[in-house]
Order: sequence, then structure tokens, then C-alpha cells
Amino acid sequence: MKKVAIVMGSDSDFPVVKDAAAELKKLGIKFEIRVMSAHRTPGIVCEFASKAKENGFGVIIAAAGKAAHLAGVIAGHTTLPVIGIPIKSSTLDGLDSLLSTVQMPSGIPVATVAIDGAKNAGILAAQILAVSDDKLSEKLSKMKNEMADSVVKKDKRLQEEIEKI
Amino acid sequence: MKKVAIVMGSDSDFPVVKDAAAELKKLGIKFEIRVMSAHRTPGIVCEFASKAKENGFGVIIAAAGKAAHLAGVIAGHTTLPVIGIPIKSSTLDGLDSLLSTVQMPSGIPVATVAIDGAKNAGILAAQILAVSDDKLSEKLSKMKNEMADSVVKKDKRLQEEIEKI
Amino acid sequence: MKKVAIVMGSDSDFPVVKDAAAELKKLGIKFEIRVMSAHRTPGIVCEFASKAKENGFGVIIAAAGKAAHLAGVIAGHTTLPVIGIPIKSSTLDGLDSLLSTVQMPSGIPVATVAIDGAKNAGILAAQILAVSDDKLSEKLSKMKNEMADSVVKKDKRLQEEIEKI
Amino acid sequence: MKKVAIVMGSDSDFPVVKDAAAELKKLGIKFEIRVMSAHRTPGIVCEFASKAKENGFGVIIAAAGKAAHLAGVIAGHTTLPVIGIPIKSSTLDGLDSLLSTVQMPSGIPVATVAIDGAKNAGILAAQILAVSDDKLSEKLSKMKNEMADSVVKKDKRLQEEIEKI
Amino acid sequence: MKKVAIVMGSDSDFPVVKDAAAELKKLGIKFEIRVMSAHRTPGIVCEFASKAKENGFGVIIAAAGKAAHLAGVIAGHTTLPVIGIPIKSSTLDGLDSLLSTVQMPSGIPVATVAIDGAKNAGILAAQILAVSDDKLSEKLSKMKNEMADSVVKKDKRLQEEIEKI
Amino acid sequence: MKKVAIVMGSDSDFPVVKDAAAELKKLGIKFEIRVMSAHRTPGIVCEFASKAKENGFGVIIAAAGKAAHLAGVIAGHTTLPVIGIPIKSSTLDGLDSLLSTVQMPSGIPVATVAIDGAKNAGILAAQILAVSDDKLSEKLSKMKNEMADSVVKKDKRLQEEIEKI
Amino acid sequence: MKKVAIVMGSDSDFPVVKDAAAELKKLGIKFEIRVMSAHRTPGIVCEFASKAKENGFGVIIAAAGKAAHLAGVIAGHTTLPVIGIPIKSSTLDGLDSLLSTVQMPSGIPVATVAIDGAKNAGILAAQILAVSDDKLSEKLSKMKNEMADSVVKKDKRLQEEIEKI
Amino acid sequence: MKKVAIVMGSDSDFPVVKDAAAELKKLGIKFEIRVMSAHRTPGIVCEFASKAKENGFGVIIAAAGKAAHLAGVIAGHTTLPVIGIPIKSSTLDGLDSLLSTVQMPSGIPVATVAIDGAKNAGILAAQILAVSDDKLSEKLSKMKNEMADSVVKKDKRLQEEIEKI
Repeated sequence: MKKVAIVMGSDSDFPVVKDAAAELKKLGIKFEIRVMSAHRTPGIVCEFASKAKENGFGVIIAAAGKAAHLAGVIAGHTTLPVIGIPIKSSTLDGLDSLLSTVQMPSGIPVATVAIDGAKNAGILAAQILAVSDDKLSEKLSKMKNEMADSVVKKDKRLQEEIEKI
Repeated sequence: MKKVAIVMGSDSDFPVVKDAAAELKKLGIKFEIRVMSAHRTPGIVCEFASKAKENGFGVIIAAAGKAAHLAGVIAGHTTLPVIGIPIKSSTLDGLDSLLSTVQMPSGIPVATVAIDGAKNAGILAAQILAVSDDKLSEKLSKMKNEMADSVVKKDKRLQEEIEKI
Repeated sequence: MKKVAIVMGSDSDFPVVKDAAAELKKLGIKFEIRVMSAHRTPGIVCEFASKAKENGFGVIIAAAGKAAHLAGVIAGHTTLPVIGIPIKSSTLDGLDSLLSTVQMPSGIPVATVAIDGAKNAGILAAQILAVSDDKLSEKLSKMKNEMADSVVKKDKRLQEEIEKI
Repeated sequence: MKKVAIVMGSDSDFPVVKDAAAELKKLGIKFEIRVMSAHRTPGIVCEFASKAKENGFGVIIAAAGKAAHLAGVIAGHTTLPVIGIPIKSSTLDGLDSLLSTVQMPSGIPVATVAIDGAKNAGILAAQILAVSDDKLSEKLSKMKNEMADSVVKKDKRLQEEIEKI
Repeated sequence: MKKVAIVMGSDSDFPVVKDAAAELKKLGIKFEIRVMSAHRTPGIVCEFASKAKENGFGVIIAAAGKAAHLAGVIAGHTTLPVIGIPIKSSTLDGLDSLLSTVQMPSGIPVATVAIDGAKNAGILAAQILAVSDDKLSEKLSKMKNEMADSVVKKDKRLQEEIEKI
Repeated sequence: MKKVAIVMGSDSDFPVVKDAAAELKKLGIKFEIRVMSAHRTPGIVCEFASKAKENGFGVIIAAAGKAAHLAGVIAGHTTLPVIGIPIKSSTLDGLDSLLSTVQMPSGIPVATVAIDGAKNAGILAAQILAVSDDKLSEKLSKMKNEMADSVVKKDKRLQEEIEKI
Repeated sequence: MKKVAIVMGSDSDFPVVKDAAAELKKLGIKFEIRVMSAHRTPGIVCEFASKAKENGFGVIIAAAGKAAHLAGVIAGHTTLPVIGIPIKSSTLDGLDSLLSTVQMPSGIPVATVAIDGAKNAGILAAQILAVSDDKLSEKLSKMKNEMADSVVKKDKRLQEEIEKI
Repeated sequence: MKKVAIVMGSDSDFPVVKDAAAELKKLGIKFEIRVMSAHRTPGIVCEFASKAKENGFGVIIAAAGKAAHLAGVIAGHTTLPVIGIPIKSSTLDGLDSLLSTVQMPSGIPVATVAIDGAKNAGILAAQILAVSDDKLSEKLSKMKNEMADSVVKKDKRLQEEIEKI
């Protein structure tokens, strides 16, 4: 199975981004985490993205804030699917990151998830790999069922709490 | 190779959505196009999404406008990757469609492309299928190179035009 | 008298949503509170909404955040009036929830109240039931008068405080 | 059966607002249409709203644009459910109208539909009256089924068109 | 000299609104402060606004949050200049209050100041009264000069602090 | 009676701004119209604003688009009340003009009307002058009554049109 | 004197971008115009930006729309001042382009002008070169004076037109 | 080498603005810091900006919040390049400051950096001076390399931390 790359523009994004890694770990998917910047280390980003496929990566997750160019720049250097996580920064509540990530021009898509949506980025990467991996697909189905069960349990717990009152 | 489903909430979205189909056709990927509504035909959407995988689909593209729930509702019924196209409608310039598509809660990702970004949705679907399909991957690389050549040609043409002046 | 259903997408919405229940209790209206998710437990939502009317419900209140599809999806399965409460989440200050709830396509209305406006959702549900229930209508008039009295008292208290200075 | 009032702030809103009347007519619900302004004829609005209930109205639909106060002001004078239609005006794409209509303070709800969502306002009014009117409820169910059929037909037509190509 | 009325929709707005009173006090202008709500006590608002002129008021300042209708409703009942203060509430950072206050329809202006701009509302009220009151006008000029002096002093202090470093 | 100055940042604003002049003319108020720019002719703006009071002006109306500094800069040079008209320009639908005009810092108010709200700027200027001018005040009351009558007539006409159908 | 580079992401931006060239021409500044894309021809952008300084450029103007990464990516490869022009595209009125251009992370500034503000980009480039070029500085002063004269003339013409009426 | 002026509208902006000074200091560029207000001390701003060039300044950095006119007003009085820093204030998250700073009319550019982007304003000022100063240009290149090294180090540190787990 191919690996997933998780790339972030600044190590200050790690507390959000690690949720993507957690999902991949849970599903037994190998991944690497890197800090690299579209603006501060553009050469490294170019090198990394251009060789990601031959280095065994199947999907790239890229997280950045503000004028979030990282996912788009990576997508410019590879035909692998690139998932973008817009990171909420100190101003504008993540709207700048969202628009900078999702509004890509024709020809170069970035598969954008919600602002700070790292967990969903991890699941989406798994869904992409699962297209050709039935075992992983089963794991995802199981995870989806557990998620449903958890909502059902919360519903029951709420009923009990209300009755007690 | 698995098929791609292209689903739209209203047939009035077709003039935008057909660009996704055009990309898939160019790359030799089989696809089906359907009109179904998360609100007007929820049963059909549920049935379709739940059986999409066993019916041979690998990726689902869903396009909708305004309170665009279609991609999210489909994603609730399948573990296949779901690509969302926010359609610009008569008010708010597509911001409502974008936020309704991309801001999905934890557990259920939608891979969102730009507002009216149907062409990129088609390419992203192809990139996802290409993760396990080297021939398709090569086609995508070739397409990327042609896209670059086209920009270079436009640059040259502009130089010539300026010189003539 | 028919019951009111209060449905929320996540139990984390309960601290906001309980204000709707409080209003109904004050007015002697029966209600049930449920946790169910348009994306994580779509089957339960479909089942619940489709049978809400025959199960004795007259109005459904649905609260959700981010890409808030819950109210819209419920409205797709019933002809009962559905009241939507957009819940403010960690980003975008509730604008995503508001637009995802209110901007419904033609044919499927959601009666949307203010962001985090759970109290008003409860009152609106009561107003709807009161259309054919004169006693409830009188209670609402009394409540409206008390609300006015409370503003008048606050005005007087402010006058006194200012005079003391 | 109680009547529905359709009130608009300016006769220039009529081309949008008439869609609400069309739905009511289709469902056999009696209605009156009035032009009155929260700012230009406040006395008439106050008089109308205060007596709406005793004059046989069950629901009030109010449409206004820009700083759209009409629905809110009416809701201040009655305990009938008030449905607000935010009208898109020449600037800001209806965002001002939407926020002025939906963001009501605690105690005075306005059941807000989409920007320019007059058709849905009509259906919502019918749904409210149908809570205590089984015949109307059946009509609404039938209308919902026809709406679903129409989507199914559009889907089929699209399939045929694609096959012809 | 005519009095200024300072009206607010809720006593919770007082901590912001009192800055308007402070400016008027500093300039020796008489004022009254009232709590009244366009939605909860519409009769009182109507009565107050209709008689404001004959009761000796020259300017009305109205502060409200969310769907802020208070200033607009008052302006509908008087030809006195009405100053609107949009109050920032718990969501949307005051944008809803601002648009609900400033985007008034033709014929009924509200002189809107910045979000939470109570101090400026007080000064603007004084400027309006000063149009026909030379003494007040001189006080305003003096206040403007003092404000300029204060900036100059802050500039000097900053220079000294920097030099010390 | 004092004069009103109507100042605009560019002569391309005239088609909007002339509505302010029309209101003043109707009410018999003298006015002057000037084109001057806070950025292109700052010296003229400074000279004009500083001497506006001694030149017999009582109120200044200033209209500008985009980063609309004109009203604010004029307000910095005078204690006369300054009314700001945010002009909608080719992008952002007037939101930039609105925020640049209304969000003034403490000490320097601008009485802001709606985007492109020139007619209301004219009426507001008249309301300000009428604070000390009973005849003008009566004219404004009469105008308000005529405005109400016009709404009543439109309401009647609509009733007749509907009946004819 | 150093040259100015004018770079755009797509030749469809040329009708807007040419205004920058026109200003430079008027001021006698040499410039080159190029079409290159941060996403479609990233290698060319990298090559161009890295060698811009040694190739005799003093300032780079970069124009792009939507998720406008071009100016930021260029700024990542050079220490020359980079001016960004956010181009208004088919949705969101240029807000996406503006935020993607201006909200750059610490360390890599982009000197951003208004949406579609190509003329100002040209003038800003000239101002930057004029810091060390007194002749160019004089030309800019002259141009500024002419601009002021043009406003004065428009003011006069308006006076005459009004008088004629 | 010419000096840089750092001007702010209020001394409360200093905690943000000082980052611009820190960058200049690091690079050995002389600068002056001033508090002056476009609205409260317009005469001082006019005087300062008009003479900035003859007083040896090469670039002016201007920081202001809300209806941020300072940079634009300064740009109106000089042909020096003016860099604008939009300061985030208590409401609207800096959007008002950004639009008031960047959306300048044709003829008067302001080189706008990110909201609260003082550090980048300092670097941009240095880049502008470096166009004609090779030593400064080398310092900037060195700083850029150090910035890249710092990202590389953070990347390594993250790898080590992950391995330890």
C-alpha cells in the first residue's frame, strides 16, 4: 500500500494537523510528516512534490494558513491527489486560508476539507487509497459503523439524563 | 477500471457540470451522470450512494448550489471518496454553496473543489483512480505537460503581439 | 396537542439547544429530544423524519453546526414544518451554519432562526401549534406581555440607577 | 381554515413575492396581499399586525430588502408565526436583508427562508396550517411526491439526451 | 438647548452605550437614557418616537444588536435626526447589527456610526445641536484641539521611550 | 439658513450623488456641489473643510467609493456634522466603501447612510438643519406624510390589480 | 535604470494588467510582460523569479485571480519587491484573489494593490524605482500634479453644468 | 541610505507595529517612529508626508485600524512608496482595516501587507531600499537563507520527536 505524506507550512500547525496522522495510524496506513513552506523553502517543496510519486506516496495532505499556497503549489508539481487543510490563523477566522486553498484555477485541483479539518483529511486520504484496497475499504466501513454507534449511544445517554431530571 | 458517478441536484446545473464529464471522457474513464436531489428525492440519493461501491463506482462527484447538501448526504452513505462542486446560484456568489459543501463535520469528508470548478472535479476523480492505475497516471502527466505547453505558447503569442505594436 | 421534536446533530450542541426545550416546558408543550446526525446516522434521521407525523409530532426543531444539513435533510422527508437552528462552531462565527440551514432550494423550506437562537426556535414551535390552539395562543400572549413588562422594569431600574449617581 | 397574509415593504418586491401567492393558490389556501412599510407606514403595520389574529389570519409572510425590518416589526405585534423573506436588493447580494431578517433577538422569532425564497415561504405557511388540517397535509404530501417525480423525469430525460450524443 | 435621547434595546447594551452619555455630559448637553425594544415594547417605542420632538428632544441616539431594528423603527416615527449605534453581539462580530442599522430604505435615514461607536454617537449628536449653537460649537472645537494635543503628547512620549532604549 | 455642501471624490459619482441635491432642492435648502479628492487634491479638501463653517455651511455630505476616505478626512478638519455616502464601485459590492466610511475611530464621527443612499443623505442633512428651523421641520413632516400616502396608494393599486385577475 | 517585470497567471488577465504597462510606458520605464502560472508552469516561475535580479529587474508585478498564488510564489524566490494585483474572477468578486495575495506569512511580503488595481501597480513600481532616481521622482511629482489639475477641471466643469441648468 | 518612517494612528498600535522596527534594526536601516492621526492631527500628517522626501525618508510605513485612512492620506501627499499595515481592531477581525487600506483609487497606490503584518512591512521597506543598495540586498538574501534553514531545522526536530514516540 502506498504511503501518505502529511505536509505543513509551519510547525505551529502541528497541534491541528496531528489529527490527520491519528486517523491514518488507526487504519494502519503508513505516513510521513514534514514541515516545509511554499514561500520559505520553495525548493524543498518542489523537490518533494515532484518525486512524491516515485518515492511511494499515493496521496499528499497539505496544511497551511493565511494566504495558504502550500497545497496548490504541491499540486502544481504532481499528479497525485492533493488534500488541502485550511488552517485558521489569528485573523479572518480561516476564511483567507479556505479561499486560498479551494479556489484553485482550472487544471490543478486541491481536494479541500473544512477549516482545521485534519481528521477528515486523514479519512479522505484513506478513502482514496481504499478505492483499490478492499481490506482498507472494509476498515473504513467498520469505522463508519462505529461512528454511527457512538451517535446512537450519545442519543441514549441524553434520553437517560433527561428522564432523571 | 472503476467508474465515476457525476450527480447533480438539478438539471439546471448541467451546463457547469458537463465540464467534469468532458475531462473524464478525454482520459478514457467511464462515467454515469445522474440528476437527484438530497431534498426532493432523498430516497433515491440514499439508495444510489449506499450501492455505489457494489455497482462499480470508484469515485462520486456531486454538484449542488445554495444550501448544497448533496455531496455531504452522499458521503454519509458511502466510504467512497466524494468530490463536491459548489454551484454558484442567483445570490451570494456561491459562498453559501461553498460553505455548505466544504465545512463537513468530523468523520464525513467531502473533497471540495472551487465554486463551479467542474473541470477540476473531473481531473481530481481521475487522479484518485490513477493512484492504482499507472496508465491513467501517465495520461495525467501528459495532460499536465500539455497544459504547461499551452501556457508557454500563450506567453510567446503575447510577446509577439507586444512586439508588433 | 401534538408534540415537538428537538433534534441535534451532536450532543455537544445540547447546552445551546436546551433553551428551546425550556420554552416548550414553560408553555406546557410535550417534546422529545434526540441526538442524530444527517451524516453519521442518516438511516435513523430518514426513519425518524418519515414517521414523525404519524408518531404524533407537529413540529420538528433541528440544530446543527458547520455544513449544517440536519434541518434540510429532515425537511426532505416530511411535510411537517421544520425549524432550523444554526449552531455557531469553532470557525466562521456561525455564518457557515446559517447559510447551510437557510438557503434551501425551492420546494423544501426550513424555518430558520438566528445563530444559536434556540429560545426563539422553542417559541416559534409554540406559535405554530397555537395557530389551532387558543389556550396556547393565550399563554403566548401572556408571555409576550411579561416580556414587555420585564423591559419596562429594566428601563425603570436604569432610571433609578442614573438618578442615584 | 385561517387565511395567510402576504405583506411586502415595497410594490417593487411583488415580482418575487408573487411566487408565495402562487403556492397558496395551488393548495387552495386563502390569502391577502398588502404593501406596507415598517418605516414609511409604521402605524398601518402596527394596526395590521395587532389585529391579524382576530381578522382570521393564521400565518403572516413578510418580505423586505436592505435593512429588512418588516418581518421583525410585525412579529413584535403578534403571536402568530411570521415568515420572513429577505429580498435581494441592488447591493450586498441580499446579505443585509438576510441578516436583518433572521438575527432576531430572544423572544421574537421570525421564521426565515432563503434570500428571494418566496415559493418556500408559501409552502412553509401551508405546512404550518396543515399541522391541524389533515386534508391540507395530504395535498402537501401529494405536492412533495410530484416534485420528486419531476426530478426523476429530469434524470431520465438527461439519460436519453446523453445516449443520443 | 434641546435634549438628546439615548435609547437602547436591552440594558445589557449599557456598558457600551454609556460612552455616548459621557460625551454629552462633558459638553453640558442634557440627555435622557431609556431602555425600550422595537420588538418587545413596540408600543412604547412608537409613543416615545412620535412625541420626542414635542417633548424637547433634538436628536435621538438608538443602540441595538443583531437584527438591530430600533434606530430604523424610531426613524419611522419622527423627523428628528436619528443616530444608530450597531452593537456587537455574540456572533458575526457586529456585521449583522451594522447592516441592519445602516442599510435603510429611501426616505428614512439613520445616521450610523461605527460598531460599538457610542462615543462618536455622542459627539455627532453634539455636532448636530451645534449647527445652531455657537457656544457648543466652540466647545467642540476646543475638544477637537485637546484631542489633537493628546495625540501629539503620545507621539512625544513614544519618542522619549524609544530614546531611552 | 445654513447651506449644505455636497462633495464627491470623482465626477463619476454624480449620477448617484445628484439624488441628495434633488431632496435639498425640493425642501428649499441651498447647497453647493463640489468634486474634490482626499487623495488627489488633499490640499483643496483640507482648505474646503477647514473653512466650511465660516463659509456658511451647516452640514457636509461626502460621497466616495472603494477605500472611501473623503468623509473621514473632511470630518478631521471640521466640527460640522459630516454625512458619508459609501458609493458602490466595480468590486466588492460597496462593502469596502461602507466599512471605510462608517468604521471611524473615536473622536471623529461620520454619519453614514446606506450604500449609494444619496437620497437619504439629503433628507438627513435637512433633518439636521430642521433641529433649529421649525418651518423646515414642518416641510419634512409633510414629506413624510406624502411618502406614507404613496405607500397606501401603491397598496390600493395592488389590491385592484389582484381583483381584476 | 532597472526594468520592471509584469507577470500574469493567464493571458485572459491581459485586458486588466495592460494598465500597469501603460503607466510604466508613460514614465519611460522599461518593462517585460510574461504569462506564467504558479500551478501550470511552476518550473518557469521558479527559474524566472530566481534570476530576475541578475537579469536586470528591479521590481516584479504579478497578477492572478482566484487562489492567486503567483505573487506569493515569486516572492518566495527573490528578495526583489513583488507587487501583487488581485484579479477579480467569475465568483466572489475578487475577495478570494485579494486574501490569497495579501495575507502572506511572516518573512515573505507581497505589496498588494486594490482588486484589478493594475494602474496603481504600475505607479507603485515607478515609486519604488524613484527612491534612487531623482529624475523619475520628478516625473512622478509632475504626474501627481496633473492628476490634481484634472480633478480641479472636473470640479469646474461640474459647476458650469449645474449653473446652466 | 535613506531612512524609513514608521507612522501609526494610535500608540495602542505600537505592540504590533514594533515588529517592523525590529526588522529594520536587524538590517541596519535607520528609521523614525511617529504617532499621528489622519483624523485627529491631519495637519501634522500633511506636513510630515509633504516633507518626508526632503527630510531624507525613502519609504513610509503607515499602520492604522478600522476605517484605516492613514496610509492613504499620506500617499496623497507624497510620491514616496507608502506601505500600509491594516491593524486588527476590536470588531470585524481586521477586514475593515484591510479594505480601507488596500482598495485605493487609481493614481494613489498603497503597498498593503497582511492584517497585523508589521514584520513583512519592515522587510518590504528593506527590499525597496535594496533595489539600489547591493549590500542591503545581500543582507536580505542572507536573511532569506536563514529563514529557510530555520524551517529545515523545525522539520528535522519534528522528525526526531515523532521517532521518539
